[in-house]
Amino acid sequence: MALISPSRRLRRTPFSEGVEAAGVKAYTVYNHMLLPTVFESVEADYHHLKKNVQIWDVSCERQVELRGPDAGRLMQMLTPRDLRGMLPGQCFYIPIVDETGGMLNDPVAVKLAEDRWWISIADSDLLYWVKGVANGWRLDVLVDEPDVSPLAIQGPKAEELLERVFGSSIRNIRFFRFGVFQFQGRDLVIARSGYSKQGGFEIYVEDSEIGMPLWNKLFEAGEDLDVRAGCPNLIERIEGGLLSFGNDMTDDNTPHECGLGRFCDTHTAIGCIGRDALLRVAKEGPVQQIRPLSISGEPVPACTEYWPLYASGKRVGRVSSAAWSPDFRTNVAIGMVRMTHWDAGTKLEVETPVGMRAATVRDKFWI
Amino acid sequence: MALISPSRRLRRTPFSEGVEAAGVKAYTVYNHMLLPTVFESVEADYHHLKKNVQIWDVSCERQVELRGPDAGRLMQMLTPRDLRGMLPGQCFYIPIVDETGGMLNDPVAVKLAEDRWWISIADSDLLYWVKGVANGWRLDVLVDEPDVSPLAIQGPKAEELLERVFGSSIRNIRFFRFGVFQFQGRDLVIARSGYSKQGGFEIYVEDSEIGMPLWNKLFEAGEDLDVRAGCPNLIERIEGGLLSFGNDMTDDNTPHECGLGRFCDTHTAIGCIGRDALLRVAKEGPVQQIRPLSISGEPVPACTEYWPLYASGKRVGRVSSAAWSPDFRTNVAIGMVRMTHWDAGTKLEVETPVGMRAATVRDKFWI
Repeated sequence: MALISPSRRLRRTPFSEGVEAAGVKAYTVYNHMLLPTVFESVEADYHHLKKNVQIWDVSCERQVELRGPDAGRLMQMLTPRDLRGMLPGQCFYIPIVDETGGMLNDPVAVKLAEDRWWISIADSDLLYWVKGVANGWRLDVLVDEPDVSPLAIQGPKAEELLERVFGSSIRNIRFFRFGVFQFQGRDLVIARSGYSKQGGFEIYVEDSEIGMPLWNKLFEAGEDLDVRAGCPNLIERIEGGLLSFGNDMTDDNTPHECGLGRFCDTHTAIGCIGRDALLRVAKEGPVQQIRPLSISGEPVPACTEYWPLYASGKRVGRVSSAAWSPDFRTNVAIGMVRMTHWDAGTKLEVETPVGMRAATVRDKFWI
Repeated sequence: MALISPSRRLRRTPFSEGVEAAGVKAYTVYNHMLLPTVFESVEADYHHLKKNVQIWDVSCERQVELRGPDAGRLMQMLTPRDLRGMLPGQCFYIPIVDETGGMLNDPVAVKLAEDRWWISIADSDLLYWVKGVANGWRLDVLVDEPDVSPLAIQGPKAEELLERVFGSSIRNIRFFRFGVFQFQGRDLVIARSGYSKQGGFEIYVEDSEIGMPLWNKLFEAGEDLDVRAGCPNLIERIEGGLLSFGNDMTDDNTPHECGLGRFCDTHTAIGCIGRDALLRVAKEGPVQQIRPLSISGEPVPACTEYWPLYASGKRVGRVSSAAWSPDFRTNVAIGMVRMTHWDAGTKLEVETPVGMRAATVRDKFWI
């Protein structure tokens, strides 16, 4: 691995001080911001996440805030998911597409009120798309990036930890719902969500000033739970089938190709940009789709470029994420596979940097 | 410095193989792509750049391509710089602003033909803004990111090197103009431009396939010129006053604050989004502006957060980039200073991670 050169452009977060004190070893850059990737080691972090509780600095999940009378209309223009039934207090995972149906981002929308929303974004400047659309369509809405930095509490002991800090009503938050809780006199939105399959919450920390006080409070409260600093874990997210925008999908892909067709209500999402382009694919289905794959043999290195998938020498797709899974004793991977070869059990070959390997299409992800 | 975790999302370039073979030591991430920052050392790279010739992988200067009957109209909507006099074959440095006059990017526009433009972008997904605007205003234009990766040839011997590969007509290219040259049967746009003050060119490498062949050809041709792999150099760019979007300015700043007022023809740039917001600042001038500053004492560390500037204990600005200059024997810096304290010679104090230091506003950058 090479070094990363620090600069103001790769923004620090309200929790950077805590992250550094916890011994972060590596970062990625996500929405122009530092996102930790390793503390002890990817494997050690993985085992700990599955047994205990971790605190993740995911400030890089920047918010795009929409406020004003046209906020709801603009939200529906952005996504093929029908938002009419969505209530304040709910979070929806929404594909966001351009006029051709290509994915621009796969964020979580947080409905704060009828006229106020946050979009908690994946790695692209979605703010620019939303502002451009709002300007061109002359909508009555303010669009900006507020000072909100999500802090994720993930792992089987997450609820126990948060109860100690915010009280037992934290247990009443249902999946992809949020409540408002107090910390040092401030209101904090806390949702049951997060980029792992181990359960947990995301605290939308509004105002950088309270970042480190909250970080410290959580560590004090969880000392006997072996709470540690952590981060989205490559192995666990592949096992769980959590896609990564920019890795597993880009604006070349439709939501249907990404297996997100269930989040597309193409017939009823009236006003959605890209709806026309998606109508046909929604009817006939995509010709290639995301699939879980196992790759045989020794642990593979990090996937830094698409690895081509072959069947009898013919290219039938590509792998975009891969890692050795200690729990499942195989290389777990996410690929995009053509319809002709996407059935579970299909045997393929994948060209990795360490040579050609056998790969098998699975029926589902591991967890 | 921490490590950077490799992934497909931090895109490799057509020249990554060459960059790695040349011994790159560190990267930054720029437009979701790897940008080298150090080869031998920032200081050694700096001295070499000023004496010889370097080849820079600046693929991360991604292109936004505009094609179609409304391409010219859309271009003028994006910038307060009047583009009416611009001819095919010219490059213009253009501030791009939102409806409030805030900077969204500071790219170089390349006019290929009346109905075809490239925008060679700084670090933000300008594609999303341009696509959003084109959609909302129902313009007849195609907007996408083509397979074009700029390769910069910078340093006093750049012309000598390019003449050997492309012939003597390379000398006829004037500053911020381009010509079309052949390589392996392909047409390549070559402009006299680049992110240094040492002179040189940028080759817009269209089609990743010819990336490494061109890279290798340039190294073979320049062996006796001591040609080396290089990259934008922090010290040299501060000495030369080359601003960095995301470091020295963000969407909080107007072009006038960034000292880019001369690129704003606010009265005649009819149709520019943000023109109304800029009219007043264009008339009255900004209340804060970019200034070169020298910082006294020992070499300062990298500037990873704004360093506050004070005068008699009152905050009057911030420093966003700083480095020790071996040639000028001082710390060179770029700051944003309030009108009350921006005159050349003004003595200020700057709060750095290594303590409070004396700083002086200069009349101009160093080179």
